[in-house]
Amino acid sequence: MQIFKEIGPLKLHLQHKRKEGFSVGLVPTMGALHQGHLSLIHASRQATDITVCSLFVNPTQFNNPADLEKYPRTLEKDTSLLESAGCDVLFAPETASMYERAEVIHFDFGQLDKVLEGKFRPGHFSGVATVVSKLFHIVEPDHAFFGQKDYQQLQIVTKLVEELKFNIQVHGVPIIREPNGLAMSSRNQRLSEADKTRAGILHESLSDARSRLLAGKPWTEVQKDIIEKINKTQDLQLEYFELTNRNDLTNTTNVDIKNGILLTACFVGSVRLIDNMLI
Amino acid sequence: MQIFKEIGPLKLHLQHKRKEGFSVGLVPTMGALHQGHLSLIHASRQATDITVCSLFVNPTQFNNPADLEKYPRTLEKDTSLLESAGCDVLFAPETASMYERAEVIHFDFGQLDKVLEGKFRPGHFSGVATVVSKLFHIVEPDHAFFGQKDYQQLQIVTKLVEELKFNIQVHGVPIIREPNGLAMSSRNQRLSEADKTRAGILHESLSDARSRLLAGKPWTEVQKDIIEKINKTQDLQLEYFELTNRNDLTNTTNVDIKNGILLTACFVGSVRLIDNMLI
Repeated sequence: MQIFKEIGPLKLHLQHKRKEGFSVGLVPTMGALHQGHLSLIHASRQATDITVCSLFVNPTQFNNPADLEKYPRTLEKDTSLLESAGCDVLFAPETASMYERAEVIHFDFGQLDKVLEGKFRPGHFSGVATVVSKLFHIVEPDHAFFGQKDYQQLQIVTKLVEELKFNIQVHGVPIIREPNGLAMSSRNQRLSEADKTRAGILHESLSDARSRLLAGKPWTEVQKDIIEKINKTQDLQLEYFELTNRNDLTNTTNVDIKNGILLTACFVGSVRLIDNMLI
Repeated sequence: MQIFKEIGPLKLHLQHKRKEGFSVGLVPTMGALHQGHLSLIHASRQATDITVCSLFVNPTQFNNPADLEKYPRTLEKDTSLLESAGCDVLFAPETASMYERAEVIHFDFGQLDKVLEGKFRPGHFSGVATVVSKLFHIVEPDHAFFGQKDYQQLQIVTKLVEELKFNIQVHGVPIIREPNGLAMSSRNQRLSEADKTRAGILHESLSDARSRLLAGKPWTEVQKDIIEKINKTQDLQLEYFELTNRNDLTNTTNVDIKNGILLTACFVGSVRLIDNMLI
């Protein structure tokens, strides 16, 4: 695996590879890698010749400075995980080379960045769109791979690529879970064992809500029960538990169950987790 | 000259050219071409192997529907002008292929799109950034050429390229003027001969203000005189006549004259013209 910290040499390397006819896949990450990330690397290796994993804790997508500060950073371990997973290129830039100066551009995605995560994390998706645009222009991948755990982010990136006509195919890769159902996340590293056990209730609640909806139960009743149950659990504080249309996250009324998705965000102690489930 | 109306075939054509080692220059226009545009074609031919001129009246950058409707469209004449100017490729897409669906993304450039043109044309620069992003991703040029008449647009595009790390070098090409000083513009086609003569006062006023500033006259006094003079002219209605820093159009206090620029927008009858002059 080749490691680049600078943009220039990475671009040169990929230009050569592209000239030789190799296709390029990009897996953008913020590091602290887990099995979820490795399944993205795997998907990229299946679809492309050269897999580039970027590892950059992007400051502009953190609305909460404490969250940015506490975000786990495990570069050495990440490097050996990527090496074992058969990743071809690791791109791990410094903040100063990704953000050379004070910047002015913000992205607005209309209602799509005002609901769910966007509502609780103002500015988050503008930061995501900014760093993803930068990475896309630096790496110029043919394919890019994102986890479905960050479902709204996947929708945002898909819009970005479609509307601005990037020459990139975006792939959403299914959530990987712990044995108790907890969705894999870098932030799980900050949970105690007891917290991890407790956090299993999120997946359990998503499954439970899904079954009850499929059995014809009205959503308002299901939602009320679930919210009560989660909030009764020690150390858990729910931000949202919503049903919406999977193709248009802004539509929450008269959701067609067959195209529905359940999405949730919840604090477990001081750690904010998200999860979702297609119906 | 090869003419493309569809995105797919254009991309294929340019991919081949790029593989053969040719560099690509893009001159984005809205058609109704004049000597100003041809100087952009000339600049591109000097700097690159293949010059692509795009011709697309971009609806999203018009805040005023009447302005969009009345914007001159002269495709046949434009084609022969480009042919004579030695342009290699004309890209003239339909609106439906540039905007395939209702779109949600808007760009915000902070103060830079709130002042001058941005103040009088809300949403204009978001539309510019959107269509320029699309064109950049479709054509993937090495160089792109923009007229300095649209000075604020040039600043917006430069920010877009720098911040989002497009692999493109942006060139600003000097204003071309009529014998009476009127800056060449597609909108001039909508002026009567009398209007064209009257509109000469804009360039005259810019020159006059520049001389007086260089002679040490205070800006507030110069600005007041100029505004009065223009507004006294029949059929002219000024929107703004401002002095600012040429590298940061949002700074209007304590402008360093050596790095200053004068910018103006004025209605001549129902036609809105803009012009500027570096000091």
